[in-house]
Amino acid sequence: MTKRVREIISWYESANPGVRANLARMLNHGRLAGTGRMVILPVDQGFEHGPARSFAVNPPAYNPLYHFQLAIDAGLNAYAAPLGFISAGAADFAGEIPLILKLNNHDLLAEEPDPAPAVTGSVKDALRLGCAAVGFTIYPGSLKSSLMYEQLRGIAEEAQANGLAVVVWSYPRGSGISKEGETALDIVAYAAQIAAQLGAHVIKVKLPTAHLEQGAAKKVYEELRVPLEPLAARVRHVVQSAFEGRRIVIFSGGAREDDKSLLEQVAAIHDGGGFGSIIGRNSFQRPREAAIDLLGKVIDIYAR
Amino acid sequence: MTKRVREIISWYESANPGVRANLARMLNHGRLAGTGRMVILPVDQGFEHGPARSFAVNPPAYNPLYHFQLAIDAGLNAYAAPLGFISAGAADFAGEIPLILKLNNHDLLAEEPDPAPAVTGSVKDALRLGCAAVGFTIYPGSLKSSLMYEQLRGIAEEAQANGLAVVVWSYPRGSGISKEGETALDIVAYAAQIAAQLGAHVIKVKLPTAHLEQGAAKKVYEELRVPLEPLAARVRHVVQSAFEGRRIVIFSGGAREDDKSLLEQVAAIHDGGGFGSIIGRNSFQRPREAAIDLLGKVIDIYAR
Amino acid sequence: MTKRVREIISWYESANPGVRANLARMLNHGRLAGTGRMVILPVDQGFEHGPARSFAVNPPAYNPLYHFQLAIDAGLNAYAAPLGFISAGAADFAGEIPLILKLNNHDLLAEEPDPAPAVTGSVKDALRLGCAAVGFTIYPGSLKSSLMYEQLRGIAEEAQANGLAVVVWSYPRGSGISKEGETALDIVAYAAQIAAQLGAHVIKVKLPTAHLEQGAAKKVYEELRVPLEPLAARVRHVVQSAFEGRRIVIFSGGAREDDKSLLEQVAAIHDGGGFGSIIGRNSFQRPREAAIDLLGKVIDIYAR
Amino acid sequence: MTKRVREIISWYESANPGVRANLARMLNHGRLAGTGRMVILPVDQGFEHGPARSFAVNPPAYNPLYHFQLAIDAGLNAYAAPLGFISAGAADFAGEIPLILKLNNHDLLAEEPDPAPAVTGSVKDALRLGCAAVGFTIYPGSLKSSLMYEQLRGIAEEAQANGLAVVVWSYPRGSGISKEGETALDIVAYAAQIAAQLGAHVIKVKLPTAHLEQGAAKKVYEELRVPLEPLAARVRHVVQSAFEGRRIVIFSGGAREDDKSLLEQVAAIHDGGGFGSIIGRNSFQRPREAAIDLLGKVIDIYAR
Amino acid sequence: MTKRVREIISWYESANPGVRANLARMLNHGRLAGTGRMVILPVDQGFEHGPARSFAVNPPAYNPLYHFQLAIDAGLNAYAAPLGFISAGAADFAGEIPLILKLNNHDLLAEEPDPAPAVTGSVKDALRLGCAAVGFTIYPGSLKSSLMYEQLRGIAEEAQANGLAVVVWSYPRGSGISKEGETALDIVAYAAQIAAQLGAHVIKVKLPTAHLEQGAAKKVYEELRVPLEPLAARVRHVVQSAFEGRRIVIFSGGAREDDKSLLEQVAAIHDGGGFGSIIGRNSFQRPREAAIDLLGKVIDIYAR
Repeated sequence: MTKRVREIISWYESANPGVRANLARMLNHGRLAGTGRMVILPVDQGFEHGPARSFAVNPPAYNPLYHFQLAIDAGLNAYAAPLGFISAGAADFAGEIPLILKLNNHDLLAEEPDPAPAVTGSVKDALRLGCAAVGFTIYPGSLKSSLMYEQLRGIAEEAQANGLAVVVWSYPRGSGISKEGETALDIVAYAAQIAAQLGAHVIKVKLPTAHLEQGAAKKVYEELRVPLEPLAARVRHVVQSAFEGRRIVIFSGGAREDDKSLLEQVAAIHDGGGFGSIIGRNSFQRPREAAIDLLGKVIDIYAR
Repeated sequence: MTKRVREIISWYESANPGVRANLARMLNHGRLAGTGRMVILPVDQGFEHGPARSFAVNPPAYNPLYHFQLAIDAGLNAYAAPLGFISAGAADFAGEIPLILKLNNHDLLAEEPDPAPAVTGSVKDALRLGCAAVGFTIYPGSLKSSLMYEQLRGIAEEAQANGLAVVVWSYPRGSGISKEGETALDIVAYAAQIAAQLGAHVIKVKLPTAHLEQGAAKKVYEELRVPLEPLAARVRHVVQSAFEGRRIVIFSGGAREDDKSLLEQVAAIHDGGGFGSIIGRNSFQRPREAAIDLLGKVIDIYAR
Repeated sequence: MTKRVREIISWYESANPGVRANLARMLNHGRLAGTGRMVILPVDQGFEHGPARSFAVNPPAYNPLYHFQLAIDAGLNAYAAPLGFISAGAADFAGEIPLILKLNNHDLLAEEPDPAPAVTGSVKDALRLGCAAVGFTIYPGSLKSSLMYEQLRGIAEEAQANGLAVVVWSYPRGSGISKEGETALDIVAYAAQIAAQLGAHVIKVKLPTAHLEQGAAKKVYEELRVPLEPLAARVRHVVQSAFEGRRIVIFSGGAREDDKSLLEQVAAIHDGGGFGSIIGRNSFQRPREAAIDLLGKVIDIYAR
Repeated sequence: MTKRVREIISWYESANPGVRANLARMLNHGRLAGTGRMVILPVDQGFEHGPARSFAVNPPAYNPLYHFQLAIDAGLNAYAAPLGFISAGAADFAGEIPLILKLNNHDLLAEEPDPAPAVTGSVKDALRLGCAAVGFTIYPGSLKSSLMYEQLRGIAEEAQANGLAVVVWSYPRGSGISKEGETALDIVAYAAQIAAQLGAHVIKVKLPTAHLEQGAAKKVYEELRVPLEPLAARVRHVVQSAFEGRRIVIFSGGAREDDKSLLEQVAAIHDGGGFGSIIGRNSFQRPREAAIDLLGKVIDIYAR
Repeated sequence: MTKRVREIISWYESANPGVRANLARMLNHGRLAGTGRMVILPVDQGFEHGPARSFAVNPPAYNPLYHFQLAIDAGLNAYAAPLGFISAGAADFAGEIPLILKLNNHDLLAEEPDPAPAVTGSVKDALRLGCAAVGFTIYPGSLKSSLMYEQLRGIAEEAQANGLAVVVWSYPRGSGISKEGETALDIVAYAAQIAAQLGAHVIKVKLPTAHLEQGAAKKVYEELRVPLEPLAARVRHVVQSAFEGRRIVIFSGGAREDDKSLLEQVAAIHDGGGFGSIIGRNSFQRPREAAIDLLGKVIDIYAR
């Protein structure tokens, strides 16, 4: 166990040994093992966007086994997916890569202004499938946010009692927030704080823009000159907003990007003290070798 | 156990032996035993459309025992029906044909733009009645889809823990989808993916048309030239969308058709790699001998 | 045990011995014992319509003991009432007449277009009060029908597991149905089918008129010339719609009628193969001797 | 045990010995012990109307101990209050007066056309606090009445199983009823019937006026000449509507009245066969000695 | 144990020894130990207002450990915070200061006219984290107040059964109340009464203004000349409204104030018989030494 991993684990002082062991299991896996940084492969787009939009561009990705192998071969820390995808390979790949069972999911077939994902898996499923953690999405800003927070509360209590780590996707969204506001710095920082207060061990947020959404917050950012630029400074602010960096915060990029921008973003996450990346569409929506190549470059940056 | 059945069962690697045994029980029953193809008789129309619309054309079908005997005599793989119909014959026909207890049902007496069926049976009922599987309908596209997904999640967990297989009817429907969209290729493929992600062992969808419903999906289908014709290609796409064919996907036809069209559709399902058919109204809404004759022809195609 | 009762009980082949014994207990009680026909006294009008509208015309009926005695003295098969009325006499009259505890009730103080009764008793209540069965009302056609079906599902499972029979009042009602449609032949037949599919052992419906409510059904009735006249033919159709007569279906008349019409209706139920009557207001809303006289004539018809 | 108390208890023939003992405990306490009549002190106005409106006129009443002592010194049968008030004195006054824990309460800070009180205590609370009974309010006529009936059903089942009596405040209210209708004779009688059918052992209603609210009921009252005057006749009708007097029905007066009217009302309750009074604001909203004096006069009337 | 603490504990006569011990633990901790007064540090603003608005003005406060140390060093009675903040330091600071786990929280990302906080922690969490009490916020005046009262009821029952004290933040809010009304004297007194009736051991309200909100209450205050001035008189009225002072009532100030006003308010609380203060933003939104200095002055006033 490296000193850095030991330090990170020490922040979770109220968590039981099982949770700490599973956090360590993820931090100590793959090419970034021991660095305190993480790169995770998430594949819930089949549910969230539909199969053709997710996989038609790289048809081998229709096969659930493809993603296990990709995460392993790219030397990632963990693989996260919904019940069906995890069930389809958990036995074949048992012990080869830490798994995160995504416990709620949302599809695009019935849109609402204030959405909430459906709960599609359980802590018991995660345990029987040999997962290291459960994943759960909340939408702060949705009028249904209380429902999600309360579902998460119950799941986190059960997961923690069973030694599983809790990874929270905190994605602001809903009638209380503008489209631009979903990635505004104040909102992303707020979303990270909420996830941390709800007991998340690992927090996943989107990379923040320099936009400020809420009037009362904007006033504070301006008066106290909280830096909005560069991106690394925003990353630093979000990490600070999650208990002064005492919680693992990782960042996602969103839609497919050109590789140069993506790697610049990763460098900014690294420089701002972010703990890593969760990279989905930019990895499985290209040929396998190209994905492994790109993920290798991402890992190289974090390994600096 | 044939090699093909053994292969199919191997895809369900996270399922416990009880579930695998029940999947094998269905795959190894009737005239298609061992082929990896299935033809199932579903009779929930009494609940879904009313008794006269379902049975008046062939009055012996009012009797629940009729359907057990029909499924047995036609050499089908399984018989699926709601609690009342299964209860009425489960003891008489114990051990003669695998049973699927349909756990939710919907009637036509109170229509809503975003419907959800009522839960009308339980896993405990299925166990005490000696069933091999439970059946559950979801309506992706309904604003109540989360309710159905969450009901299914609980039922699937309990069924799986008790060694029962889970058959999901995934029927897109609701205010988010046009009437034509309910059978659109992108939507049917999405519905198959959702059912697979929710943990279904067997997925039942409607035969897709060449229509594409959602703009963002249409763009992908067109750019990547996903083939829309012939029907066999669409079947193949839907099967691919259910974990690259690693889940059993079967197809229904819908309203009564002329036999020629029906058999052409079955041939397309066969050619596209579909795993079989679920044939209700085209079987019990005609005289018994005619039904057995038609089902025989269907089986012949799958047995090719 | 007569051959006829033995035959009826045989239809409930999936029910456990306790349920069969309680069905037999009702079929073998009173003057119609052993005939396979039933006349039941239901007294929930105090709750459903208010006490004065129910009992002021015959004040001894305010007393809950009155109804037990009436049902016993008239030689009926069973007495059905809500928790309060049953509790008030269950010990005094223990063992003298089979009791049906009505588990949900509706009042007229807060009207809604899509009503659902409140659950006002439990299976545990029925057990501790020595009942033979529980009663439950569903309103197919109400937008809240799923709620009622699901409540019934849970109650039926618990009742069945404890050896109690389940009597379902299936009364179409709600925004999906016209007033005239509530007793339309297609709707009453559909309501009987739904109750049977939900696992009812005894089904109570209203006598159907020759009206047809739903367009798609009407087409079938007309094309296939399902007879709408006379009343006995309609009774026969409803009984057929409940699993070809393999479920006990009994009929209610509704508001107070002149005796001649009532007895003609009973004769039609008898001739159409109906299993009996449930007679409330026509029995307790007249002097005791007159009620016993009328009920005697009803029983005479069924005993033919 | 007097013959009258023994008679009253005999009506609760399905209740277990614990419930009967607690009913007897209330009937045999205070100056009216053994008469079959009851006077109860209820103090939930702090919650229902706010503290200043309840207690400022007689400041010692802010203290929860005050009310225990008042009920004891006035020789009442029981004291009823919410969790906080009962908790504040239950140990000090253990065994000195039967307690009724009011399990739901409503405040005036958020008004709705169809209100429902919040559940604010539990049967377990009542047991640990040594209470003889639980109290529960229903609002027949509210669109939320089913919620209240179902909450009461669960509470009554648990209370009864634990030997506690159930006292129901049946207060018609909500969008289905006019303000005047809340105390209309037909409505109050209906409310008493509903409470009795729901299993209440003791029923509390408001004194009815001669108004008739519902058209269908009015027709019956007029045709059958149910007497509307004097007040004693109306009391008699309400008592009759609660199972021909086989349930304990007590009456409340409402707002503060001049003593003469109050005592005339008590005399009418007495003469009409009512079982007693529940007197809140007319007792604690005056100086202690004056309250004891007035309650003494009330008791004298009931003791005639 | 001082006589005063013993007296206060004696008011909680129905609470079990565990609850009394935890109340004593808070009353006997810090510089005010034994005086019967309390000063508590609450830090839920990160969740309630967002991290930057809460902590950017004093960046060390982003760190959850900062607040534990601040509360200890300032000699406070207890520290209250949500699950995340308490979890982050509960092991490090075990036994150094009584902890109150705030079990529900509300964010500003999705505003509603009738809000309700989300339940974000459990009694089990409080027990495993070694807390002395749980905290819960209710919004009397919100149309969702029943939901919160019922959540509190369940939590208080479980907390009490496990020996934890219950601290209730009673903050009137919602469509039934004007903005000015949220701190009106009648409303704050009503809110204190409701919390006490719901079983709160410690009640936290806002300092009341001399405004009167509700017409019916205003009439009483004016007729009976309940004093509205000075602030100490209003404090006295609120304390009286919580069971004549037999429940611990503490006051919060709200937004950051100049120190002079704050200390004057504290003096008024002291003089009016209030039990103490809960001081959040005025403590952690300034440099640590300045905060300790101000809190020292507050404590000095209470220690007079």
